[in-house]
Amino acid sequence: MTSAFELLGAEVKWEGKVVRAGVERFRHDDGKEVMREKVWHPGAVGILAIDEQVVWLTRQPREVVDAADSLEIPAGKLDVAGESPLQTARRELAEEIAKQAESWEEILAFYTSPGFSDERVWLFLATNLSDAPDARPDEDERIEVVPWPLDQLDQAIAECEDSKSLIALLWLARRL
Amino acid sequence: MTSAFELLGAEVKWEGKVVRAGVERFRHDDGKEVMREKVWHPGAVGILAIDEQVVWLTRQPREVVDAADSLEIPAGKLDVAGESPLQTARRELAEEIAKQAESWEEILAFYTSPGFSDERVWLFLATNLSDAPDARPDEDERIEVVPWPLDQLDQAIAECEDSKSLIALLWLARRL
Repeated sequence: MTSAFELLGAEVKWEGKVVRAGVERFRHDDGKEVMREKVWHPGAVGILAIDEQVVWLTRQPREVVDAADSLEIPAGKLDVAGESPLQTARRELAEEIAKQAESWEEILAFYTSPGFSDERVWLFLATNLSDAPDARPDEDERIEVVPWPLDQLDQAIAECEDSKSLIALLWLARRL
Repeated sequence: MTSAFELLGAEVKWEGKVVRAGVERFRHDDGKEVMREKVWHPGAVGILAIDEQVVWLTRQPREVVDAADSLEIPAGKLDVAGESPLQTARRELAEEIAKQAESWEEILAFYTSPGFSDERVWLFLATNLSDAPDARPDEDERIEVVPWPLDQLDQAIAECEDSKSLIALLWLARRL
């Protein structure tokens, strides 16, 4: 029952600095038309940065879900024009935890909520870490760096509440 | 570095049938004010429904990410007033794959993208399955039921591209 459809039109109802919101109309190949609410998002990266002993996590406020110190993997939006997901991941690793990695591997990419948003997140494994020279953490981001012991990974999985961190840590738990 | 903040105000810029989009302003306890774009969402459930041999998946079009047949666990929005996540999960299991379950266990709950959306997803494990009486699949949903062999779980993980399904299947892979 593979279904095909075509986009008939898109209407942006509100344009923010990060996201746009509106509706799209589609026609399925059986002739039926559907309307879908849509939030356009530039996409993001998440980084699973591990040493032999720790996975590097962060704590930061997530105001829109009323969380004072959300435990997450380092991450960031694809908000620099022309930057690839891997380039964004390198930049964010330095900005968020002041590290660089010699080895990078793309783990997978996923949609956070494909029913209404096109946000896609690329997850990378970063290993062979060292201190990043000239790392300038963004003061406004209120990010605390948390070196989390790998032998307590289950506790991190139990505490994390966002999709990218859960996927990355569950993936890591299988691999270890 | 636990930070506290208070909500100063919210402004809805566009109200759809499913989501609302706009901005919220917060004041952190150091006095700094921040503005966050926000998409309000009613929340959703996902169901990991397993027999001894299969995990029950679905294929459906996800128009907003241009996917003709997205492979996912059964799921649905919390769009019935007064319904608990577990009640929604029971209803969606019958609507999407015409099954009912004797045993229900909440696995975890997570935010799909807490930087800009308050969408929270509750994941349930449903076991001791049987055919649901009077199941009335929603014709408009274009959902194909896919009984996926548990011994090919890795291939499902490789194909799934949405956060709820990846979290549920990675969780299951560890448990098996």
